Amino acid sequence: MTPLRVGLAGLGTVGGSVVRLLLDNAALFERRAGRRLDLVRVASRTPKPDIDIGSATFDTALASLDADDVDVVVELIGGVSAAKDLVATAIGAGRHVVTANKALLAEYGEEIFESANRRGVSVGFEASVAGGIPIVNALRTGLAGNRIDAIAGIVNGTSNYILTAMQEDGRDFATALAEAQRLGYAEADPTFDVEGIDAAQKLAILAALAFDATIDIGGVHVEGVSGIDIEDIRYARELGFSIKHLGLARLHDDGIEVRVHPALVPESVLISKVSGVMNAVMAHGNAVGPTLYVGPGAGGMPTASAVVADLVELARGTLPVPRPAARRLPSLGIEDVDCAHYLKIPAIDQPGVFAEVADVLSRHEVSIEAVIQRPQAIRSGAEPWVPIIIVTDDVPEAVVRECVSELANLAGVTGEISRIRVADLSAMMPPT
Amino acid sequence: MTPLRVGLAGLGTVGGSVVRLLLDNAALFERRAGRRLDLVRVASRTPKPDIDIGSATFDTALASLDADDVDVVVELIGGVSAAKDLVATAIGAGRHVVTANKALLAEYGEEIFESANRRGVSVGFEASVAGGIPIVNALRTGLAGNRIDAIAGIVNGTSNYILTAMQEDGRDFATALAEAQRLGYAEADPTFDVEGIDAAQKLAILAALAFDATIDIGGVHVEGVSGIDIEDIRYARELGFSIKHLGLARLHDDGIEVRVHPALVPESVLISKVSGVMNAVMAHGNAVGPTLYVGPGAGGMPTASAVVADLVELARGTLPVPRPAARRLPSLGIEDVDCAHYLKIPAIDQPGVFAEVADVLSRHEVSIEAVIQRPQAIRSGAEPWVPIIIVTDDVPEAVVRECVSELANLAGVTGEISRIRVADLSAMMPPT
Repeated sequence: MTPLRVGLAGLGTVGGSVVRLLLDNAALFERRAGRRLDLVRVASRTPKPDIDIGSATFDTALASLDADDVDVVVELIGGVSAAKDLVATAIGAGRHVVTANKALLAEYGEEIFESANRRGVSVGFEASVAGGIPIVNALRTGLAGNRIDAIAGIVNGTSNYILTAMQEDGRDFATALAEAQRLGYAEADPTFDVEGIDAAQKLAILAALAFDATIDIGGVHVEGVSGIDIEDIRYARELGFSIKHLGLARLHDDGIEVRVHPALVPESVLISKVSGVMNAVMAHGNAVGPTLYVGPGAGGMPTASAVVADLVELARGTLPVPRPAARRLPSLGIEDVDCAHYLKIPAIDQPGVFAEVADVLSRHEVSIEAVIQRPQAIRSGAEPWVPIIIVTDDVPEAVVRECVSELANLAGVTGEISRIRVADLSAMMPPT
Repeated sequence: MTPLRVGLAGLGTVGGSVVRLLLDNAALFERRAGRRLDLVRVASRTPKPDIDIGSATFDTALASLDADDVDVVVELIGGVSAAKDLVATAIGAGRHVVTANKALLAEYGEEIFESANRRGVSVGFEASVAGGIPIVNALRTGLAGNRIDAIAGIVNGTSNYILTAMQEDGRDFATALAEAQRLGYAEADPTFDVEGIDAAQKLAILAALAFDATIDIGGVHVEGVSGIDIEDIRYARELGFSIKHLGLARLHDDGIEVRVHPALVPESVLISKVSGVMNAVMAHGNAVGPTLYVGPGAGGMPTASAVVADLVELARGTLPVPRPAARRLPSLGIEDVDCAHYLKIPAIDQPGVFAEVADVLSRHEVSIEAVIQRPQAIRSGAEPWVPIIIVTDDVPEAVVRECVSELANLAGVTGEISRIRVADLSAMMPPT
């Protein structure tokens, strides 16, 4: 059979790794795909003379990939604008596309899939979510016997690294972040990761695939890990929880619940033990029940592994041409989600304060599942205060907000109340 | 497109679940596959009038599936002899085959794949290993960008249930087994599960796929969990390990290491936390590094999920026709494997015994990684004795055997020495 001719854009960490993998494992991929994967063209704005690109032709212009000898364009330049043009040109010319670009897909996935559908070309995006974990493939094929009810996961390695360093090594947020930056796990500007944006994009891609639906990225409720305090982590642990940055999407009759935020996860659930830069995605199917997929969520070679898997599928003729989603699912607002909550309430160490706190919750019919209050060292200024830690039962968002606002106005409460959602995944997760 | 016409053999737990899934989710599968999955014929020696088979034709004769209106035979009768005939007839007549039968594939996989290859028909076997976990699909497609170096996993739910009950609830082996039998997790005759045979078959199938090789099932070193004592579990835990029944296959220059046995797994490795009837398979790729897949390893609906995934792939035209393996890999004997060991040595509580034990190990150049020895209640008869627990460094099998034999002959050693291998998977497993 004729080789699959690959044009690759971008020679960063991932691009360089894809090139290396294609050259090093050429015979293996030929056997698996039934034909050769030939790297014919490489485009990168910055030449990287130290990267061996074999017999491929190099050019600094992305337009060089718009050539007759290219069957598939591998887009690894990142960013949205230039990547979108590159992908649109490729599809317009009848070329297949493989991309690792989650931002591009979260924002323009629908448009890209529609044009690919019209042109009859395939789009591979295994590498866009959870790095080397073959979760797109699992959802598309391995779990094809299921209606997927829910997905949840740790899909941002930077956030998980920071939370793990806080929990295991007692680092505070700033120190853990600096460490992540030093090790190359976080960008100089970490906003994208620590504010949850990256995770929201990945979750939207996964949810669209799992539920065969168009998901509005704007409808995803997003919170990052930047507000998590080392003290919250300690109290959570004492109560039998790990704090994880979780993406969660669940199908309801009237829409889809899609949210990304830090959450207390019971230690009896396996995903609570996934540490460091590892990613983990849970998919719950109506037939199989809970399944969990764990692996490296980022990095050159793991991501390249996913890119090449798409290329092998394409060469085999089994990488699908995207179809329009079966439905457009409205996102439920976070207001429509009932959730258990962890509250840390800084209170003056005086009799009666706890009773006042309990009274506020009681008046809003909020049940208390767990409490920690104990004498503590003086924390600030002249006034001695102690944190009251409360875990509630499931409560509608509006009620929690009302409670927090009333609690903050109590004379005995001094300072800001932290609240973190509890994700009781025990019904849909493999246990430990 | 014309429907894929399914003939199903066997109406046991799995067969009944497949029928239900095909009828209940018909519209979903049609959308995913691009054509209908029509259940046209069902054969079962025992009629099951309570199972709704829709518009399919029922017959008690398996031969009824050898009909022109059947495109694929789904073999869910279990056992080897009749299943082999059924599959051979189907392939001979140019029908595709989907099977959940690990014993059949472990024993006759090569023959079946060869004849399917000659006839150009596909064979699906996702359901034969690790129930609902789509690990076959992951190895075949999701990880196609990798050379797989090693696989390891908990692939026998019965054994994992028993070990978990022993570790978490302090049951002894017999009680845990009886409990598993009562709950339907173990057969009346549990030999197949608790002696490791089931796990060995699954591991052989996975290893053949992962390494693109023919594996001789006779070359797999097999030990089951039946010899594990509650005391071993307690000491292991004290040393930071869980005891798991593990299958492990690793590629070496001169062959393949394939073994199934109980093992001490460090608690710092995620798979050590996989509990109950859950299965977990780790695959280590040269590009992606460690990946782990967790889910229900048995049961009607999880296994049906895997069967239907193969049917959807077949309907799409993406379920591959088996190819002859790239190579025949010799199995390394357990003698060729260096392994750390846990030893429990029952010793008379007298001065000098520990020194004698240490001397035996030292003469064989066995390094000691950890020791527990402490005063204990009198254990048996007149003689007070204490267990000496030792964890060694990596040692060749022959040397461990020699040590155990010499230790058993020491005057101060009273009773049988337990030894369990330590599986240090930290280099190839996602950490906790």
